[in-house]
Amino acid sequence: MEEESKTLPTKDNFSEWYNELLMMAQIMDVRYPIKGVYVWYPFGYSIRKKVYNMLRALLDVDHQECQFPMLIPKPELLKESEHIKGFEDEVYWVTHGGLTELEVPLALRPTSETAIYPMYKLWIRSHADLPLKLYQIVNIFRYETKHTRPLIRLREVTSFKEAHTAHATREDAVRQCVEAMDLYGEFFTKLAVPYMINKRPDWDKFPGADYTMAFDTMMPDGKSLQIGTVHMLGTKFAKTFEITFENDKGEREYVNQTCYGISERCIAAVIGIHGDNKGLILPPNTSPTQIVIIPIVFKKEEEAVKQACGNVKAILDAAGIATTIDFADERPGAKYYKWEMKGLPFRIEIGPRDIKNNAVMLVRRDGRKESVSMDGLAETIRGKLMDFQAELLQKAGDSMLARIKDCATLDEAKLQVEGGWARMSWCGEKACGLEMENVVNCKLLGEPQGVTGAGRCPICGKPTDRVIMMARSY
Amino acid sequence: MEEESKTLPTKDNFSEWYNELLMMAQIMDVRYPIKGVYVWYPFGYSIRKKVYNMLRALLDVDHQECQFPMLIPKPELLKESEHIKGFEDEVYWVTHGGLTELEVPLALRPTSETAIYPMYKLWIRSHADLPLKLYQIVNIFRYETKHTRPLIRLREVTSFKEAHTAHATREDAVRQCVEAMDLYGEFFTKLAVPYMINKRPDWDKFPGADYTMAFDTMMPDGKSLQIGTVHMLGTKFAKTFEITFENDKGEREYVNQTCYGISERCIAAVIGIHGDNKGLILPPNTSPTQIVIIPIVFKKEEEAVKQACGNVKAILDAAGIATTIDFADERPGAKYYKWEMKGLPFRIEIGPRDIKNNAVMLVRRDGRKESVSMDGLAETIRGKLMDFQAELLQKAGDSMLARIKDCATLDEAKLQVEGGWARMSWCGEKACGLEMENVVNCKLLGEPQGVTGAGRCPICGKPTDRVIMMARSY
Repeated sequence: MEEESKTLPTKDNFSEWYNELLMMAQIMDVRYPIKGVYVWYPFGYSIRKKVYNMLRALLDVDHQECQFPMLIPKPELLKESEHIKGFEDEVYWVTHGGLTELEVPLALRPTSETAIYPMYKLWIRSHADLPLKLYQIVNIFRYETKHTRPLIRLREVTSFKEAHTAHATREDAVRQCVEAMDLYGEFFTKLAVPYMINKRPDWDKFPGADYTMAFDTMMPDGKSLQIGTVHMLGTKFAKTFEITFENDKGEREYVNQTCYGISERCIAAVIGIHGDNKGLILPPNTSPTQIVIIPIVFKKEEEAVKQACGNVKAILDAAGIATTIDFADERPGAKYYKWEMKGLPFRIEIGPRDIKNNAVMLVRRDGRKESVSMDGLAETIRGKLMDFQAELLQKAGDSMLARIKDCATLDEAKLQVEGGWARMSWCGEKACGLEMENVVNCKLLGEPQGVTGAGRCPICGKPTDRVIMMARSY
Repeated sequence: MEEESKTLPTKDNFSEWYNELLMMAQIMDVRYPIKGVYVWYPFGYSIRKKVYNMLRALLDVDHQECQFPMLIPKPELLKESEHIKGFEDEVYWVTHGGLTELEVPLALRPTSETAIYPMYKLWIRSHADLPLKLYQIVNIFRYETKHTRPLIRLREVTSFKEAHTAHATREDAVRQCVEAMDLYGEFFTKLAVPYMINKRPDWDKFPGADYTMAFDTMMPDGKSLQIGTVHMLGTKFAKTFEITFENDKGEREYVNQTCYGISERCIAAVIGIHGDNKGLILPPNTSPTQIVIIPIVFKKEEEAVKQACGNVKAILDAAGIATTIDFADERPGAKYYKWEMKGLPFRIEIGPRDIKNNAVMLVRRDGRKESVSMDGLAETIRGKLMDFQAELLQKAGDSMLARIKDCATLDEAKLQVEGGWARMSWCGEKACGLEMENVVNCKLLGEPQGVTGAGRCPICGKPTDRVIMMARSY
């Protein structure tokens, strides 16, 4: 495929850097002729596969994968009034099949509660059917009128993982929310993406939910990116869709439900947080290929070098480390450039001198370089990959924490959200919250999980021990 | 989830048997409130995953997976006139986003040529970019007005694998068609699905293609089911979408293209061909779990039996044979019924007597039963699974061949297509072909690959060595 000859903007110009990088590293092509809709290049898709297989592995422990239809009849979508209010402005409608106008307009799912819960009504009969924990990975659609951006704000979300659970008691459903949060925490840690969990303000929760716990990460420009949400639904949808079970006394009761979702924003976070001026930096867990071997060839010793490269690849592959050799007819420098752009964690250079030393030259994607002995190579490399993964998370976590600040005044907060997040006291009243958003020109992410502290609401002045996180957000 | 208490109709009542089986074995739920749109149960989806991962493994050797958008702007879809003529009656149109009417109506992809080829125009620049071989596995949509049926005739095809290739020469594209046919042949053989390859009559080829090679299998009622197609596109789409490359003389040339597709009909074929009056029969390759172990428990020896079951599972799992133990508190008979319905290839019964004999009781899904020694158990079982897989294919192939008959007269053909396929001479003229379809009340599947034979066209009486396959079809 085409080669790009452009130069990547520097990362301090984050927005341009991000958009260009997605093209230059061949993650997404942004030139598809519909706004907010993008094409996964094969390389980008291979990362998507790796990341989502990781997510599947975590879920498959006690969830089952299934698939529900993409089209939702209008009457079903309208059934739950709070829910539809949250989505009515952004639902795409199919009105015609061929030249025929449909009797019932069909929505492209913006999320699947209203597609799934009519089936849950049929599937759940007794307490023996509970808990029910299903998930699907599907495309969903939102008619976004805001500025769209690949992987972040989309009209077609291609990779929406949504889990939907049903339980016999509210207590069980709450426990499920906690388990889901643990699971998401583990997932983001594997991606080397640091996060904070914020309980969204009531006016910003999922439409129809009791409450929403959200995973937020910080992008390099200090803005927040919502990368996962866990919703406690209680019995609201169960009542609308008549999802009941017979308890052990033979009485019918409504189920308690939860749902939780993750989209390709998780990949946007990996790219945005770890990349640098040379391109992507993929944490080893997320990289389809962890190591590229580059032969440093001189005519005379070409055969020996090729053989050494093949040998090293065989050793690493056998140890489960995905390795490729770049034998292309290009200068090493061109190869470095190419693989750095694609963010491969490590490159190994092998030339005649390395062979003589019974070693290879290891170059980490962040530039650190060292000679590594062939003795015990696979184990050494595996250890260093794990270290690299941990270092990326550590660095990103430190960077995020360093940019979160307790602010005493709204003026201070206003300055803080220019390049980070502000934490403030808040009385809990919606009016005060909206006024804070207005004055600081930001969004209230919500109450950080487990954080309280005595203070005064900056709007009404009431003493309070509630705390709220504030940020500009994607 | 709910248990069905219905009885499965017998398989000679194929249509009812098929529909009921999909529900009872929990493949698809047909109760979703839109015609022609169905829900994948977790069990059905686990088969889908297994089968499509097999398909991916075959393709990934020299194709790359990617993903293109689901929405296609109307002007792009209309660009290729023959192509749109083939689809205009069955395209779903999105006309509104929220309450706003869209300026440009968007089609739900009925297939993705017109979504992909505008990008190929951008991606392909020089002969070094060729061949380009990409594929995606996506949902596509057809506004079917005919009778719909799960996995077979759908308004949402959830699992469309479509490959699209571009080549420097026509010869290369033709070679790709042959390679694709080989690949599909290997895939269907792995599914134990026998097939014939027929070159579709010109009036029934893919809209916009030079020609179409189709994979047809025979369902138990003798009707044909198209389970895969390979299309030689030549330069028609390349000319419409201006896909050119610079050849080594520095001149711009149009690429030659092919595309080929497989949908969840491949799973319909497995189910329809192999199932019996007790339910599914899954060829071992397609079954997420190959073996269920059923403890035959008597109070006194419960612990010993449980331990023996765990031991056998460990041995089989370690050998890569997916095994489960059914410890449910049910009588063995109920368990047999359940797992036979779900089509697991083998069941292993373990009771005190088997333990004493240092053996297990193996029961194949077709009822054959034998005691198998614990010595070398995994290897014995693996061999028997392979045999079972081969036997299913052999039996299905024999059954299909036995129901294909050379017919000398149209009357004979008319009788033959009641329960099988008829092969006849045909002059090659469209008028004669349509008349044959009309008189015999069938479809011309096309010219079977590599088959010719001297005879006379039954309509015009002209001598010809061309031969055509005729069938009723799904």
